[in-house]
Amino acid sequence: MKLSEIATRLGGEIEGAGDPEIKGLAPLDEAGPGFLSFFSNPRYAGQLAETTASAVILGPEVEGPGCPIVRVPDAYLGFAQALELFYRPPELASGVDPGAHVAESAEIGEGAQIAAGVHIGPRVRIGANVKLHPGVVIYEEVLIGDDFTAHANVVIRERVRIGDRVRLAAGAVVGGEGFGYIPLPGGGVWNLRQIGTVEIGDDVEVGANATVDRAAIGVTRIASGAKLDNLVMIAHGCQIGNEALIAAQSGIAGSTRIGARVQMGGQVGVAGHLVVGDDVRLAADSGVSGHLAAGGTYAGYPAFEAPRWRRAMVLLRKLPELFLRVRALETKGKHKD
Amino acid sequence: MKLSEIATRLGGEIEGAGDPEIKGLAPLDEAGPGFLSFFSNPRYAGQLAETTASAVILGPEVEGPGCPIVRVPDAYLGFAQALELFYRPPELASGVDPGAHVAESAEIGEGAQIAAGVHIGPRVRIGANVKLHPGVVIYEEVLIGDDFTAHANVVIRERVRIGDRVRLAAGAVVGGEGFGYIPLPGGGVWNLRQIGTVEIGDDVEVGANATVDRAAIGVTRIASGAKLDNLVMIAHGCQIGNEALIAAQSGIAGSTRIGARVQMGGQVGVAGHLVVGDDVRLAADSGVSGHLAAGGTYAGYPAFEAPRWRRAMVLLRKLPELFLRVRALETKGKHKD
Amino acid sequence: MKLSEIATRLGGEIEGAGDPEIKGLAPLDEAGPGFLSFFSNPRYAGQLAETTASAVILGPEVEGPGCPIVRVPDAYLGFAQALELFYRPPELASGVDPGAHVAESAEIGEGAQIAAGVHIGPRVRIGANVKLHPGVVIYEEVLIGDDFTAHANVVIRERVRIGDRVRLAAGAVVGGEGFGYIPLPGGGVWNLRQIGTVEIGDDVEVGANATVDRAAIGVTRIASGAKLDNLVMIAHGCQIGNEALIAAQSGIAGSTRIGARVQMGGQVGVAGHLVVGDDVRLAADSGVSGHLAAGGTYAGYPAFEAPRWRRAMVLLRKLPELFLRVRALETKGKHKD
Repeated sequence: MKLSEIATRLGGEIEGAGDPEIKGLAPLDEAGPGFLSFFSNPRYAGQLAETTASAVILGPEVEGPGCPIVRVPDAYLGFAQALELFYRPPELASGVDPGAHVAESAEIGEGAQIAAGVHIGPRVRIGANVKLHPGVVIYEEVLIGDDFTAHANVVIRERVRIGDRVRLAAGAVVGGEGFGYIPLPGGGVWNLRQIGTVEIGDDVEVGANATVDRAAIGVTRIASGAKLDNLVMIAHGCQIGNEALIAAQSGIAGSTRIGARVQMGGQVGVAGHLVVGDDVRLAADSGVSGHLAAGGTYAGYPAFEAPRWRRAMVLLRKLPELFLRVRALETKGKHKD
Repeated sequence: MKLSEIATRLGGEIEGAGDPEIKGLAPLDEAGPGFLSFFSNPRYAGQLAETTASAVILGPEVEGPGCPIVRVPDAYLGFAQALELFYRPPELASGVDPGAHVAESAEIGEGAQIAAGVHIGPRVRIGANVKLHPGVVIYEEVLIGDDFTAHANVVIRERVRIGDRVRLAAGAVVGGEGFGYIPLPGGGVWNLRQIGTVEIGDDVEVGANATVDRAAIGVTRIASGAKLDNLVMIAHGCQIGNEALIAAQSGIAGSTRIGARVQMGGQVGVAGHLVVGDDVRLAADSGVSGHLAAGGTYAGYPAFEAPRWRRAMVLLRKLPELFLRVRALETKGKHKD
Repeated sequence: MKLSEIATRLGGEIEGAGDPEIKGLAPLDEAGPGFLSFFSNPRYAGQLAETTASAVILGPEVEGPGCPIVRVPDAYLGFAQALELFYRPPELASGVDPGAHVAESAEIGEGAQIAAGVHIGPRVRIGANVKLHPGVVIYEEVLIGDDFTAHANVVIRERVRIGDRVRLAAGAVVGGEGFGYIPLPGGGVWNLRQIGTVEIGDDVEVGANATVDRAAIGVTRIASGAKLDNLVMIAHGCQIGNEALIAAQSGIAGSTRIGARVQMGGQVGVAGHLVVGDDVRLAADSGVSGHLAAGGTYAGYPAFEAPRWRRAMVLLRKLPELFLRVRALETKGKHKD
């Protein structure tokens, strides 16, 4: 694809001489001739100066390294648009492979691509354009909207409900039993049956080997536009808000409500029965043990306001000195007495 | 089901007028007409007052919201019993599906339900009433008791031994190689062969995508009644005690012994070669780096006594002020000199 | 096997009377007659004295418990060598099972062992002696070297490249889409297409249910000799150095570079766009939020030098007393004024 065509598609302007043929996108430090790169994170300014890319996508007022430039209002968004031009979706044959096991009572919409080794249970209903890779297992009475994709070895348990344009990455498990046990006074453990289900909105994505448990009663809800990364755990009865972004290995304990547009770094933990307000940001690795007001940024374990936490962490390293200083004050006081 | 029948089954008393038909259980804030709810966590007192449920399960001396009440000695246990009444297990056809791959030398007990896409290796022996969902893979010489359930895509490696009434959630992996490597002085890494196995007692449950590794030598043991939540990791050579409850994403490093009835919140980490005593409780997110005495409650990273940890965490936020106060004392001392 | 033969294979010397027949290896506290054990971790000195093993592998100058001894320069390495003698690999029938789904355009080398229920996509190329257990799914155009093993239900996404002697444990997912989203100012979330891939070197091992994401652009690299434990998460665009050892449930965020021979305990988190130098050691549970210089040992969240962190943690417990001491100094100061 000619650079000029890419620039047109991105709504950007070319600066510099030439209109090279572009065969792909690459990071600044790996992009050789024929590749287009981009610069938006100031950390990589050194790499911009030294790149051997054939062209670079840049935002306003950033100086280029010498090669042709595609100038756009937002370099990262321009890069995002360029990714679309070079994206090749994984292959999957049309139709239902004879090696798939589809229950007679299941209803599948138009345009299905269903691989061998897929299992679809009784009374399942799936909309149009479904893509199911090998090893996907869908239990009975699951309802799924249009344009659904499940990668290899995804498991969807009975009666889960899923909206349109949802994508589940390989190995994700939706609708497993919640973890509910009561240790009995005389010994033994009562297993709380989980009779609820999971409801997933539209445009939701769930990462590889992530797990979303069904509610004990009622519904575990993942609202539209929410994105869960790999190995995330959503426990029974949680409500995850619209367009929440939850990074890898984070876990939300039972019955907690996560607001809309909440962003969590990786390995965050949120205790059960809490409310995390809309637009909250949680730093990676933080552990939440109380309700959090909307709009705040929090860090630490237990999590509190991020700037205060950062200061506390700097001082934590200086604790040994502080103990010495207090000891010195105490000694001095004694000498004076 | 009539409310009066439910009350009888729960051994409770109905209070209030009417005997509504109950079609299911729901949380207080979602239960509409026709639904039974319950109240035991004081956090939800506001929801109790406003519920539109047709009836509510309540413990002694709790005032009801106006609708009929089922009065029981323990509302949560009453709820647990009510769940049993409405529970529908996932469907699975009787017999061994012709699409299952069962080695000729495998022995399967009476009443088996084995789906298409299940793989059972040579010399495997399984007891009565086994339920294997699609994609379950059982390697050679595995021994399993009665009433075993494995959900879709569970993997059980060679020679693992499993007791009665065990349930493995979707994607769980039991018996993988432990992580054992020795960096060699001259470069390279020696891969320690893991020739041990895993032994799981009776009534154990393992969560979705959880992993339990085989021992290098000897046995990784999950004692009877232990329950592991989703994405839990049990490393090689661990011993997990009877009726231990380990919440999601917790990990136990190699050769550690966890006592009976230990309870761990989510994302707990326990280092290797440690002993955690019986009845210990570990707060979510805590990290254990030393032996822990039986019966204690611990929190933090590194974990110590929970009350002390909570106080330390409150003071951690006040460190900036403490540094200022010490500075002020020092300055004052100098002025006096 | 006779103890004398084991001693010869280990290059060790027998001390003590007798040459017992050895049927296996076991830990000191579980080894009965007929079993060989070993002692290298001083924690287990008490078990050495009381073992009923028929023989024990010991390093120089360690006194034995009375039974015959195999004396070697390094007991742990001797144990590692002994493991090789008793190791039995999991069984897998020769050839390609007729129940496997192999695309016509796929090329598979000599000596393949491919189970029923394996799916291999178009234009995949795999070298000699591949072992694929049931449920393995390999998407199109994947390239794999010789002596590759994938355990049950492994998923390898399109165009991933893998070297020689690589082993993927059950349920591992390689090449899933990275987690890349841009919240749009007017609402909605832009899904960044991930057009890069994953490249895995030689002698790499990936643990059960671990996930390695493909790069947005360019390549996520796992260098030769690196070992990833169960449930590890490697995000898009990371570079993992040669012979790095990353224990269970650790997660590396996007575009971070981990040096050669880095060792991480379990549940470590490393933020994105960082550089962790060669030979760094990270304590279990630590959280890295800045670059780390080569060769250091770090602990804590945020991680800093381990000895300093350990001192700070001891003092953290004493914070309540420190606050009281400062209060006392302040009061005393006032009395004097």
